[in-house]
Amino acid sequence: MNQGWTERQRPPRLERRLEFADYETTRDFLDRAALVSERLGIYPDMSFGRTYVNITLHAQDDATEVGEPSRHFAREIDILLETEKTLDE
Amino acid sequence: MNQGWTERQRPPRLERRLEFADYETTRDFLDRAALVSERLGIYPDMSFGRTYVNITLHAQDDATEVGEPSRHFAREIDILLETEKTLDE
Repeated sequence: MNQGWTERQRPPRLERRLEFADYETTRDFLDRAALVSERLGIYPDMSFGRTYVNITLHAQDDATEVGEPSRHFAREIDILLETEKTLDE
Repeated sequence: MNQGWTERQRPPRLERRLEFADYETTRDFLDRAALVSERLGIYPDMSFGRTYVNITLHAQDDATEVGEPSRHFAREIDILLETEKTLDE
């Protein structure tokens, strides 16, 4: 998993903050992340503005750690960002 | 403006929380709200999960109140929600 992800406690969660050049790029990322959500059935809390997105993956119910399905989601987001970077180059 | 909007201080802002039946409806709302953002050039802070969206419109810089452009955005969101409701009926 990319080191941009941070494990936090109370409540247990995995977070990543992303910055984008403009609103179009932000929206493009959100659209692609939505496809990942639909494919994996994982719907994290997302917050965004014109040029940023924060992703928060919570542990399920009383779990003390974020589970494997959410970590899978995180890795898919990493791949998606790598692809975007490659396309930009 | 719909009474679902709440004026708050420190910092001055206008907030509204929306609940949706499912992820598809949530995404549909976010897509339509993005078109309003692009049309008006207003990019609020939005947070969402599978079935909710929170919208926060901040006052500009040192203003003590949320300005008219952001209130215009809020009213356009109201219209958009009215349209969705009509379509559902």
